[in-house]
Amino acid sequence: MGLPVVGVCAAGSAPACLTPGTAMRIYTGAPVPLGADTVVMQEHVESAKGRIEIRHIPPLGSNIRLRGADLRKGEMILPAGSILDARGIAACAGAGAGEVAVYRKPRVALVQTGDELTPAGSDLDGSKIWDINTPMLEALVREAGAEMTKCTFVEDTPQALAHAIAECRDTADIIITSGGVSVGDRDYVKSVLENAGAEIVVSGVAMKPGKPVTISTLGDSLVLSLPGNPVSAFVTWQIFGRAILKVAGGSTFTGHEVQRVRCGMKLHHKPGRREYRPATLVKSENRGEVYLTAGEATHSNQIVPLLAADGFVIIPDDQAVIAEGDMVDFLPL
Amino acid sequence: MGLPVVGVCAAGSAPACLTPGTAMRIYTGAPVPLGADTVVMQEHVESAKGRIEIRHIPPLGSNIRLRGADLRKGEMILPAGSILDARGIAACAGAGAGEVAVYRKPRVALVQTGDELTPAGSDLDGSKIWDINTPMLEALVREAGAEMTKCTFVEDTPQALAHAIAECRDTADIIITSGGVSVGDRDYVKSVLENAGAEIVVSGVAMKPGKPVTISTLGDSLVLSLPGNPVSAFVTWQIFGRAILKVAGGSTFTGHEVQRVRCGMKLHHKPGRREYRPATLVKSENRGEVYLTAGEATHSNQIVPLLAADGFVIIPDDQAVIAEGDMVDFLPL
Repeated sequence: MGLPVVGVCAAGSAPACLTPGTAMRIYTGAPVPLGADTVVMQEHVESAKGRIEIRHIPPLGSNIRLRGADLRKGEMILPAGSILDARGIAACAGAGAGEVAVYRKPRVALVQTGDELTPAGSDLDGSKIWDINTPMLEALVREAGAEMTKCTFVEDTPQALAHAIAECRDTADIIITSGGVSVGDRDYVKSVLENAGAEIVVSGVAMKPGKPVTISTLGDSLVLSLPGNPVSAFVTWQIFGRAILKVAGGSTFTGHEVQRVRCGMKLHHKPGRREYRPATLVKSENRGEVYLTAGEATHSNQIVPLLAADGFVIIPDDQAVIAEGDMVDFLPL
Repeated sequence: MGLPVVGVCAAGSAPACLTPGTAMRIYTGAPVPLGADTVVMQEHVESAKGRIEIRHIPPLGSNIRLRGADLRKGEMILPAGSILDARGIAACAGAGAGEVAVYRKPRVALVQTGDELTPAGSDLDGSKIWDINTPMLEALVREAGAEMTKCTFVEDTPQALAHAIAECRDTADIIITSGGVSVGDRDYVKSVLENAGAEIVVSGVAMKPGKPVTISTLGDSLVLSLPGNPVSAFVTWQIFGRAILKVAGGSTFTGHEVQRVRCGMKLHHKPGRREYRPATLVKSENRGEVYLTAGEATHSNQIVPLLAADGFVIIPDDQAVIAEGDMVDFLPL
């Protein structure tokens, strides 16, 4: 009967040598013996008394994984700036890159203002409202892969604000302030930053919500000043904060990934600012097409419409009406 | 001239009282004084000598945020089983829920087998290949929001495997094994689990890649045994691992979110098992429609095609050919 079985190839052992007219048993993961060119599945072999009969001869080269089949020497696995997720890590490991140079996580400090705020759950006594932005921004920073190194709540005085910013400017790559950045007499953020030597590079954006958003440089830190209204803070974070953290973390930022979606209803908008309105995608019954629905307006203090939203419909600054059936830009969350 | 200004309402202070025929200055975030029903923007007011003239009278109730406008008492914010992301945290904070009961993160232990494996970057000496699954599965578990409590590499003997499983069965909610679960003489995972008292509830699935995937219960732990080939491990993780961790973490799992996409090429498939083949979505030049492209086959040992994939095209078990232009199921990553 057939061929003599002259040895065993075990996973993890050095490759053996196979001479013509003989066979070896091989286990999954073992190196193919030198001289061999095909592996036959054990289900296709009959064996008895140290010899085998091959019942079904497979094509030449069957059941062998060739070295270099997945990746050739010199081939690029990941471009610089890639985010190392599980697949990227797997590809690096498969190429033998047990250690990979990475950017450290950006360090973010949060300076939260607003004398009317008090931690969620504490007594409101008619004068306060619960602080949404601190826990929301902490979570947003973490979700963006950065590290929150300091989180300070300051009273609404220039001195307290200046002190808080001085405390974190040397350790944080990014300082986020929230509130106090509009035009009111008690909106101290911009003047305090300027007194500290910051250069304000963006002071207000024609967007709704989020008009007061301000960006400045302060020494080696970048300061992103978000409005105090939670929805304004959320939207400006999505538009500016995430992009800033991406770049600070060594990634490339090539613009937000906006989709074109059919609008399922008539939308009214006061021209003047580009609006980011919470919107939901709905699959239509017929043909499975996706269309968009949104509320009648964006309320910058109402966080609940955000919860149900799949993203934002972007209404151009000069457009007063979007008709039902128009294609619109949609920024997914 | 106009109305006398009789006081100031500061953010965080108790609400004042306003009598008819008078006005008060109010800052953003301050409670509206009792008796007042409208706030006029300072840009629309002229003031001199403690009196103001209103140049532009806004509608009744302007610039006031009403209590309960965002959320009414008794309204549900989040259903049980929701994942608390930044928006959910914001909504809880806005409702005063400073502390929220959550499920703890599932605890996962990994038992990696395969005598042919060695850590990425170490010397291969002709007998070894680099271990992809350990770092890949660690990252996948972390990305799914669970905690990796133990990560053991064991040699391919029943004794070593039994010892490793005994070591983690009391502390892990989920034990993941990788490799050694097929039909070979040295695939010990199933027999070791049975000897340890496990009840095997799924032993192999008609899918490609990933056919040997096995699920068992061992005391209070669930054991998910993934194949050793990295792509098989990745796919079975996506199909079974993520769902298991979701449920273990207190979320509801209602099936994978599969999309219907147009296939941009002819696909061949050997009938018998449902295939999950890495696929990429391409936006067509005309009309912006999205279609799908995929390779000629799924190679369970090649990790590079995964890197570029947007997800998997799901080829039904009984289908030999998918024609160009057919609608297919697509599982996004």
